[in-house]
Amino acid sequence: MAETRTLAAPDFAGWSCPLPLRDHPRVVMGHGGGGVMSAELVENVFAPAFGSDPLAALRDSAELTLGGARLAFSTDSFVVRPLFFPGGSIGDLAVNGTVNDLAMSGARAAYLSCGVILEEGVEMAVVGRVAEAMGAAARVAQVAVVTGDTKVVEAGHGDGIYLNTAGIGLIPAGVDLRPQRAVPGDVVIVSGEIGLHGVAIMSVREGLEFGVEISSDCAALGGLVEAMLAVTPDLHVLRDPTRGGLAAALGEIAAAAGLGVVLSERAVPVPPEVANACAILGLDPMYVANEGKLVAFVPREHAEAVLAAMRAHPLGARAAVIGECVAEHPGMVVARTALGGTRVVDLPLGEQLPRIC
Amino acid sequence: MAETRTLAAPDFAGWSCPLPLRDHPRVVMGHGGGGVMSAELVENVFAPAFGSDPLAALRDSAELTLGGARLAFSTDSFVVRPLFFPGGSIGDLAVNGTVNDLAMSGARAAYLSCGVILEEGVEMAVVGRVAEAMGAAARVAQVAVVTGDTKVVEAGHGDGIYLNTAGIGLIPAGVDLRPQRAVPGDVVIVSGEIGLHGVAIMSVREGLEFGVEISSDCAALGGLVEAMLAVTPDLHVLRDPTRGGLAAALGEIAAAAGLGVVLSERAVPVPPEVANACAILGLDPMYVANEGKLVAFVPREHAEAVLAAMRAHPLGARAAVIGECVAEHPGMVVARTALGGTRVVDLPLGEQLPRIC
Repeated sequence: MAETRTLAAPDFAGWSCPLPLRDHPRVVMGHGGGGVMSAELVENVFAPAFGSDPLAALRDSAELTLGGARLAFSTDSFVVRPLFFPGGSIGDLAVNGTVNDLAMSGARAAYLSCGVILEEGVEMAVVGRVAEAMGAAARVAQVAVVTGDTKVVEAGHGDGIYLNTAGIGLIPAGVDLRPQRAVPGDVVIVSGEIGLHGVAIMSVREGLEFGVEISSDCAALGGLVEAMLAVTPDLHVLRDPTRGGLAAALGEIAAAAGLGVVLSERAVPVPPEVANACAILGLDPMYVANEGKLVAFVPREHAEAVLAAMRAHPLGARAAVIGECVAEHPGMVVARTALGGTRVVDLPLGEQLPRIC
Repeated sequence: MAETRTLAAPDFAGWSCPLPLRDHPRVVMGHGGGGVMSAELVENVFAPAFGSDPLAALRDSAELTLGGARLAFSTDSFVVRPLFFPGGSIGDLAVNGTVNDLAMSGARAAYLSCGVILEEGVEMAVVGRVAEAMGAAARVAQVAVVTGDTKVVEAGHGDGIYLNTAGIGLIPAGVDLRPQRAVPGDVVIVSGEIGLHGVAIMSVREGLEFGVEISSDCAALGGLVEAMLAVTPDLHVLRDPTRGGLAAALGEIAAAAGLGVVLSERAVPVPPEVANACAILGLDPMYVANEGKLVAFVPREHAEAVLAAMRAHPLGARAAVIGECVAEHPGMVVARTALGGTRVVDLPLGEQLPRIC
C-alpha cells in the first residue's frame, strides 16, 4: 500500500456544517468553553473525522493497551490569560491539568510531553519563568517531562506563550473509572471548595479587588486519587471540574451514565470570598472552573471510608458529600436549594470566562 | 507531602538569560527554526528547568519503559502557514510529523493525541476540512487519534488553527536507534528527493510559479522504517530532516555522535524544480524542510540490502547513498562538491522559511 496521497484543493463551499441546533459558520469563543458548544464541536466535527467513538472522545483521557501495559493517555492545550496569576501560572496549569486528566482514569502520571508555541517578541525571562514553573510543578507531581517541541509565530498571532502537554500513566489493576459505571445510590463527593481558579483568574484579569486575594486551587491530584484508591479500587467515576465547573462535570457524567444526580446545594463548599466575587460578577460558582478539585461517584458502602481518606490528604481536607446518583430524571442534575426548593443545574452552553486554562 | 504550592510573583528582572553567545532578551522567529537557536533554547532554558538531559531533550522522541512495555513518546506543535498547500495540510503534517518522530525510534505509531487551538472567527468549514485531513492521514498511517482537547483564542491571537499531536508506539525488541550509535564506516542513506516540502510552502505563500507545481512530500514513514528494520534491527540512526533540512539533521547527528560526516554533493537527490526554485529564492536545498523523508546511518555490511528494501517501498523509490560517517572532523559535516572541492555544511542558525510546519 502506498502511503502517499494527494489532498484535493479543499472545497470549503461544499462543506456543510454538521453542528446541530445552532448555525455556526465560524468559530466563536464558546466553542472553547468546555460546555455544550465544545461538546458539539467534538461530537459533530472531530469525532466523525477521526472515526472516534464520540462518547470516548469526550472523556478526559483515553485508556489503551500497548505492549501488555494498560495506559491512560491524555492531552490539553493551555491558553490562559494572564500567564501568571495568584496561586500559579500557565506552566503549573499545563503540568497539573494533564496529570489530573490521567488521575481521573486512576492513573498516576509517569511521563509528560510539552509543546510550546511562542509569540515573537515575548521576553525570554517570561519563557524562563514559565519553564521553571513547569519544572517545579512536575517535581511536585512526580512526573517527568521527557519530550518537547518549540514553535515561534509572528507577533500578533499568539499571546506570549501557549502550551500543550500530553501525558501517559499506568492504570492500576482492578481500577475501571468511567461515567458508565455510575449506578443509582452512588454517593457524590467533591474534594474541596469550588470556584477558586476561575475567580482568581477573573480578579487579576479585570483588576478587581474582593477584599482578600483569591488564589487558584491549581494542584496535582495524583496523590489524592492514590489515597482514595487505597480504600477501594472500586470507585465508579472521577472527574476534575475544570472548564464549565462542577455543573459541566456532573452534567456530562449524568448524560453519559443515563442517570440523574441530586445535589444538596448547601453541602457544596463555596468559600465566602468566591460567593461574594460571584455575586458581584454575576457568576454562578457551580459553573466556575477549578484546577485542583475532583468529584467522585463512590459506591455507598465505601463512601464513609473514602471521604475519611480524602480528608486525611492535604488536597482533600475540605472534602464533602454533596449529593447522590439517582435513577430518576436521567441526564439531569437537580439541586435542592437551601430554602427547600429544587432547581435544574443545566449544562453550560459556552463559557462564562474565556481562556481560564 | 502537601501537593500545593504558592508561586511567588514572578521576578522577571532578576532572571538572567542563560542563552550563550547571543543576547536575546526576547524571542525571535529563529528560535522556532529548528537550528542552532532552537537547540540553544532547549539546552539552556527548557532542559535545565525540567531537569532533563539536554541531549535527550533534543531528540525527536523519548524512549521509556512503562508497565514492562518499551515505548517511544513524542510531540510536535504545528503552526504552518497557509493551512492548505500542494500535497497536504496542517492536518496531514500533524499526523505524519508525530508518526515520523516515533518511526525515527523504530516505533510504529499506535495512538495519537490531538490538541487544537482555534482562532475566534475561523470558518467552521476550515476546521472541518482540517479534521478530515487528520482523520484521513491517520487511517493511512494506521494510527488512532484517541484523545484530544480544543481551546479558542480571540481573533488576533492565533492564525486560524494551531495543532499539537503527541504519539506513543512500541519499540520492537532489538531496535536501538540513536545518534550515539553511529560509528565510522556507517553508510548514510537518504530515502528520496529533498526540499519538496519547504519549496511547496514557499511557492504558495509567496504566490511564486516555478513552471510546475511543487507538492509537499508530506507522508508517514512508519511502513518504510518497518521495511528497513525487516532487513536488520541493527540500524544505527534514523532522523527525519524537517526544519533545518538535511543539513540540520546530519549536523545534529555528527555533534551528538562526536563523529564526522562526508557527503557526496552530487549524490544528494535534488529534484530539478527544487534546484530551480532554490536558485531563484536564494535558498540552499540542504537546509529546506522535508516532511516525508528520512536519513539513515546503516552499518556498511547491511547497506546494500537496506537500500534495496527502501527502493522497493513506494516512499523510498528514490533512496540513495549520499555519504559516510568518518572519525575525522568530529561534529562536522563536509560535502564533496561536483567540482572536486569540499565545503563545510554548517548547522543552520535560525530559519530560512518560518512556519513551514
